Amino acid sequence: MIETDIELLKGIANQLRILSIAATTAAGSGHPTSCLSAADIMAALFFGHMKYDAKNPHFYNNDRFILSKGHAAPLLYAAWAENGFIPIEHLKTLRQFTSDLEGHPTPRLAFADVATGSLGQGLGVGVALAARQDKLDYNTYVLMGDGEIAEGAVWEATSLAGYYKLSNLIAIVDANRLGQSQATAFGHDIGVYVKRFEAFGWRVETLDDGHDMEEIMEVLSGVGLDERPLAIIAKTYKGAGVSFLQDKDGWHGKPLNQEEAVKAIAELSPSATTGLGVAIPAPTALPAPNLTAPANYPAISYKLGDQIATREAYGTALARLGETDERINALDGDTKNSTYADKFFKKFPDRSIECFIAEQNLVAVSVGFATRGHVPFASTFATFFTRAADQIRVAGISTANIKLVGSHVGVSIGEDGPSQMALEDLAMMRAVVGSTVLYPAEAVATEKLLEQMAAHKGLCFLRTSRPKTPVIYGNDEQFPIGGAKVLREGDKVTIVSAGVTLFEALKAADTLKAKGVNVTVIDAYSIKPLGKKEILAAAKKTGNTVITVEDHYAEGGLGDAVAGELSSEGVKVHKLAVNGLPRSGHAAELMAAFGIDAPAIVKKVKSL
Amino acid sequence: MIETDIELLKGIANQLRILSIAATTAAGSGHPTSCLSAADIMAALFFGHMKYDAKNPHFYNNDRFILSKGHAAPLLYAAWAENGFIPIEHLKTLRQFTSDLEGHPTPRLAFADVATGSLGQGLGVGVALAARQDKLDYNTYVLMGDGEIAEGAVWEATSLAGYYKLSNLIAIVDANRLGQSQATAFGHDIGVYVKRFEAFGWRVETLDDGHDMEEIMEVLSGVGLDERPLAIIAKTYKGAGVSFLQDKDGWHGKPLNQEEAVKAIAELSPSATTGLGVAIPAPTALPAPNLTAPANYPAISYKLGDQIATREAYGTALARLGETDERINALDGDTKNSTYADKFFKKFPDRSIECFIAEQNLVAVSVGFATRGHVPFASTFATFFTRAADQIRVAGISTANIKLVGSHVGVSIGEDGPSQMALEDLAMMRAVVGSTVLYPAEAVATEKLLEQMAAHKGLCFLRTSRPKTPVIYGNDEQFPIGGAKVLREGDKVTIVSAGVTLFEALKAADTLKAKGVNVTVIDAYSIKPLGKKEILAAAKKTGNTVITVEDHYAEGGLGDAVAGELSSEGVKVHKLAVNGLPRSGHAAELMAAFGIDAPAIVKKVKSL
Repeated sequence: MIETDIELLKGIANQLRILSIAATTAAGSGHPTSCLSAADIMAALFFGHMKYDAKNPHFYNNDRFILSKGHAAPLLYAAWAENGFIPIEHLKTLRQFTSDLEGHPTPRLAFADVATGSLGQGLGVGVALAARQDKLDYNTYVLMGDGEIAEGAVWEATSLAGYYKLSNLIAIVDANRLGQSQATAFGHDIGVYVKRFEAFGWRVETLDDGHDMEEIMEVLSGVGLDERPLAIIAKTYKGAGVSFLQDKDGWHGKPLNQEEAVKAIAELSPSATTGLGVAIPAPTALPAPNLTAPANYPAISYKLGDQIATREAYGTALARLGETDERINALDGDTKNSTYADKFFKKFPDRSIECFIAEQNLVAVSVGFATRGHVPFASTFATFFTRAADQIRVAGISTANIKLVGSHVGVSIGEDGPSQMALEDLAMMRAVVGSTVLYPAEAVATEKLLEQMAAHKGLCFLRTSRPKTPVIYGNDEQFPIGGAKVLREGDKVTIVSAGVTLFEALKAADTLKAKGVNVTVIDAYSIKPLGKKEILAAAKKTGNTVITVEDHYAEGGLGDAVAGELSSEGVKVHKLAVNGLPRSGHAAELMAAFGIDAPAIVKKVKSL
Repeated sequence: MIETDIELLKGIANQLRILSIAATTAAGSGHPTSCLSAADIMAALFFGHMKYDAKNPHFYNNDRFILSKGHAAPLLYAAWAENGFIPIEHLKTLRQFTSDLEGHPTPRLAFADVATGSLGQGLGVGVALAARQDKLDYNTYVLMGDGEIAEGAVWEATSLAGYYKLSNLIAIVDANRLGQSQATAFGHDIGVYVKRFEAFGWRVETLDDGHDMEEIMEVLSGVGLDERPLAIIAKTYKGAGVSFLQDKDGWHGKPLNQEEAVKAIAELSPSATTGLGVAIPAPTALPAPNLTAPANYPAISYKLGDQIATREAYGTALARLGETDERINALDGDTKNSTYADKFFKKFPDRSIECFIAEQNLVAVSVGFATRGHVPFASTFATFFTRAADQIRVAGISTANIKLVGSHVGVSIGEDGPSQMALEDLAMMRAVVGSTVLYPAEAVATEKLLEQMAAHKGLCFLRTSRPKTPVIYGNDEQFPIGGAKVLREGDKVTIVSAGVTLFEALKAADTLKAKGVNVTVIDAYSIKPLGKKEILAAAKKTGNTVITVEDHYAEGGLGDAVAGELSSEGVKVHKLAVNGLPRSGHAAELMAAFGIDAPAIVKKVKSL
């Protein structure tokens, strides 16, 4: 790189600093000093190193950039203004209700593939794996803060990246020493980070001065040098470039007032240069991957009465869908022989990712694949998705097209005991913005719901069960998202259930029928959106009385969903659910002890 | 150690193997081969190294043992049978409904301080910190599997343990190479683990043969050698000691059938010895820490109308309680200047733990403190507790006495945008078994609820808010858990709210009153248990019509709680809550846009 280029990049860095300060001062909130520490690195990446089409941020072979330290959003917006994508005057709308330039980046912006701001989730392992699978040569650059390095999710991701030798993944740590409330644990002792990344299988380069443009460009020129992912640890200063901000405590998340902003900008202006007009290297011309939905899937052929666990039907279904749907990836966290994802793994090893016992990263990798147009199905025991609750929450904000499948739910798993029982998963998944929550009772419903999930754009959760259950639907039955199935019709009460307890409800209905009491039984296979229309219509015919039965805690699951949606219509909802701490035992003993089996349902109906 | 002792320990190891096999075969499920790989280490720890009173597992200065690889539960039970604490014949009740010997350990057993089985949570950093604070000299030994090393939570904990130089913490990794569905990422390449623990500030010893008793005892003799925590990486074999099990794939989580068990036990019996009668070294005699609840707390003196954010009142309250309550610890994840935990940190630095940006460990450390009789209050932004959802779930199973305080909830945080807004925390916390969920609207309620939390045994969550709100209660007002406050009485409709939206409800009530419409307004500061009695009584007086208003998603929060509990009583519940994905903006704009402000409430009342 010639001297003038270095000078140009230095100037652009200061221009990004000015824009970051101006925007946060206009907004009256934000994190200007967190922008300033990374401005030189950003200028180098966006105007001297990365290959991308600035007019088309979504272009499939653009180098990807993830701002893992999402609070430096104004710096990102400044870069995309200086490369011409957004009007510079628009930066002053930062954080306004009517602006897409939010406090932290979200995919409302074309150049933000994912929402960031919940720290330590940015390491784009899924994106880098997708590039490899799609035979594209783009790199993925991730800008991290030093504070977020404390997050365990970072080490799940670095470990897997090292294991899979993702040489197309580059993490840059902006080690500016200062966290929100005090110095970070290791301050400017960047050797600690070097050892850690190396121990996790990465090549590591350091920038002893993360503001030295020549040094930055030299280190970046080594990208792709060997087969390992590359970590660049940059010693920087928070507030760098402005005398009264640099390396000063007490400036986290604090905008400059007008006077301070004027002073700071006056310091920076003499050495600032616009990036508009800089020729950004174009991405390589490579064929686009074929990631379109198939015209159809192979047919299914189950027999009524066949005994198949829904978790096994999931594996069968996924392997079936994979035959015609190239978009599908399977991911699992060393439970694939229990979730039955191994059926897909064996058939399509090139589209299967073992993520080992690291559920945060399992979900994060799925999100990465989804950003590249893939349709990832990630599976583990449903309760272990709680490990990734924040990643799932943020995936909701990212409107990520991921499919989560959790097995081994409820007390009906039996002997393994409470640590393995998902009893809170419906509550957690319902509360994810834009989520779809499905809970099939048998194999045909599972197969059909998997087709729905593949077709639906957005985050879906499918709850599967450990025990075998009989096939009760014909192979042509349809299961639209938001529907429900009326399986028995009566006049006394409507029993709404799903999963294993649906069969308890059916048994209870038979027992009651023998005594001359006719009840309605509904399969609420779609928990969110709920089959409200069907349930309400049934309730109206049974004196507005509904009993819900679920193998889940009483809070936030099927019962609350039905009560929350139907109580305003005058429907009385009586919940049967797991109350209290379960223990090991046989499934039947536990379902009886917690009052969610057929006798408990019969008793409840009689009490009404 | 003399030769005969080594032989004795070898014999005990095989006895533990026999008992583990017998128990799992009797149960018909379980993980015998995961027990066998660790049997030698367990024998060494329990019968040749640890100092503890086997008759009194809870004794305050016993060395602690945490079975992080909880699926090896039968091995733990065997050790506590061979040291005389539980009758050996009781081991055959493993996994039965009537037995406390569950599939994975829970604190129903006196020797299990915490529930384990959700992997990677066992690293007892909180326990080791509590020992230091309590001036006790017990060590904490943690037995981990190699599979669970992939969990990010492990690295959050190791990092903090290294940072605080916890030389009283010893992690032993049973690297048996085989996971559940395949080999672990690094198999028997134990050098990988060595590098990682070293990079995280630990002293590391290896056992090239984790079944060589002499080698094990020698390494254990070095415990406490320097100021760092100690990791012992043991190369072991799954199924070790039984020819047809050792290092064989396909044996994870699979009991031996009767015939196989007989064969295995026949192989082991000749070299097995009972541990009954072995003299276990007694713990040092040191004074017990003073951890009793205080007779009272200093009084409060707020003025009606004072404007104070509940998050700030939390900090004030915690510092106040800390004056007379020695049990209290404060923990935070580098947000203490926002959560206001820093008020306690400044006043009581010796009882304050900065956990940096690592929320899984923040909660895990709290659980550790709670097991030692402390009352830990852990704070961060409420939405970042989702990062620790699994730790919180398991804390519920452990009946851990921890107090979680989450700030910055709802769209009313405004400009920072959705990644920072807790909108799912009530759903998540309600679904934790045994949890208490509190949501004060102003300072007095916050102060009084903190006293309730300190007195209550069990997991509590307090939801605090960012905006300032006026004091509306007198300093003598009481806020029992499970109560609710009627603030306005009317005849048309009952509005139930909490937190910042309570003030919107009060504003709406004033507006309506001016138009001659009188509504009841209830402060539902206790979300779980809900103030059902008060709400139901009010609803009965307002035509069974209730409107709930909350700064939370519509799923699983206050609205679902009220509907789920009252719909069966014939109450019609209309929910006002956040539906859809929020964005940055001013708090008032967002509350209006999502229909949870006073005008939206007025509109809803009119529509009824």
